[in-house]
Amino acid sequence: MPNPDPESRRFRLDIAYDGRLFVGWQSQVGGDTVQDFLQSAIVQCCPAASGVHGSGRTDAGVCAEQQVAHFDAPAEWSMRGGEWQRALNSQLPATIRVLRCVEIDPAFHARFSVLEKTYRYDIAVGEMLPPLKAGLAWHRKEFGPVTELQPILDLFAGTHDFRAFSAKRHDGKDETRDAVRTISRAAVSTDVSETLSIRFTGNGFLYKMVRFLVGTAVYCIDEKITREDIRNLLSGADRDAKAPYCAPPDGLSLIGVRYPEEFEIFQ
Amino acid sequence: MPNPDPESRRFRLDIAYDGRLFVGWQSQVGGDTVQDFLQSAIVQCCPAASGVHGSGRTDAGVCAEQQVAHFDAPAEWSMRGGEWQRALNSQLPATIRVLRCVEIDPAFHARFSVLEKTYRYDIAVGEMLPPLKAGLAWHRKEFGPVTELQPILDLFAGTHDFRAFSAKRHDGKDETRDAVRTISRAAVSTDVSETLSIRFTGNGFLYKMVRFLVGTAVYCIDEKITREDIRNLLSGADRDAKAPYCAPPDGLSLIGVRYPEEFEIFQ
Repeated sequence: MPNPDPESRRFRLDIAYDGRLFVGWQSQVGGDTVQDFLQSAIVQCCPAASGVHGSGRTDAGVCAEQQVAHFDAPAEWSMRGGEWQRALNSQLPATIRVLRCVEIDPAFHARFSVLEKTYRYDIAVGEMLPPLKAGLAWHRKEFGPVTELQPILDLFAGTHDFRAFSAKRHDGKDETRDAVRTISRAAVSTDVSETLSIRFTGNGFLYKMVRFLVGTAVYCIDEKITREDIRNLLSGADRDAKAPYCAPPDGLSLIGVRYPEEFEIFQ
Repeated sequence: MPNPDPESRRFRLDIAYDGRLFVGWQSQVGGDTVQDFLQSAIVQCCPAASGVHGSGRTDAGVCAEQQVAHFDAPAEWSMRGGEWQRALNSQLPATIRVLRCVEIDPAFHARFSVLEKTYRYDIAVGEMLPPLKAGLAWHRKEFGPVTELQPILDLFAGTHDFRAFSAKRHDGKDETRDAVRTISRAAVSTDVSETLSIRFTGNGFLYKMVRFLVGTAVYCIDEKITREDIRNLLSGADRDAKAPYCAPPDGLSLIGVRYPEEFEIFQ
């Protein structure tokens, strides 16, 4: 954890964005990422502010209802959280919104302090995906027996070696050396508009893990693999085994990031 | 009305689109319009098909839940409505969808046969517009007494000379020579998410008329003009009088086009 600088004040940002319009969270050359827009808005407001750190990446096309980030401003910089929020929102495109901004204990770190994250994956079932949902749901014309989905999701809950449910990261970081994660909740719900929503809460997710879990569950519904196959993948016994399918990014949203209680108290 | 060609078959298309991504309905040089995409998809399927005619234009940024159009294919061309629908959807971007396609009496004309259209205008009230609603609602941080909105809308209902509630068309066509239109319904509803939705049904709408009606109603709520001022604008007495405000295109959607019963019977 970086050593807090007594000369600066730390701010926590809670952010929402329409991921269809950005090439993911993580800053990159070219700059059309959420982090790049946010960083440039922060520097516009306070040239001496630090870089902005997110709770983690989201891929291109993935939306966020609650992403969390932090940045530092010089101690003598007088802007308060609410002022930062308004100033940043006036700089940012309307498809990125700062939901709140508060000064926070410098011990807080958007990434290292995370306790749990929750993702939602939406699957729209029907002849056609409405235009306003394009890119916001995985469109399937048909879907097998929905009642069989929850028992499959139950296989994922708990602590497992999820190496089979991950992709190689572009930055070369090898996550498979420690691929054990705990999923505390994996649940499906349906709404009137024929959308299936699957929510995963866990203490950490490997690269593309949620999409592999969803793709694999749908493969199982389609009877292309069995629950026994999934149990084997989750055992981590075969270190080269791979989940059969990675669902498209369209349906994925980061909907919650939870921190220890001392970082969740806001004005 | 064009003379139906016995050598051809006419098809009615019902279409939905996300207007944020197109520079309006009407074909233009540059081609990023809904009509251009549709026309190019039709010709891709059947090079001998006619041009596509819409029920009317929608401006850049305006969405449609139901726009209607027609085109003709040669009589010997064997594709049926359902085949056209699937073929066109496979050619079109996911943000334009053909909801249905049926062969129809050649006397049907998407524009000239219209009985009534319905538009919805959404106003999102709150500190912030959620990113996924960007461009889909007129964002207002505050809104005056909502209960006063319906009595203002009641002023618009009925037959009036709406010349004061229109803008000059780009194509030079002068609509003010016959600006009398009948609004059969102007009603507001609210939902849980703090969105005000105003629906207008009428036998015709002048260029930007719905946006002028909404802008004027909000001006009246804000006490910048009185109901008496609105009555004067609607009387058409002062032929140079202009409505005070045109609401942004963001909140506008064409949600229904109604035709005589003989054109509303589908397989």
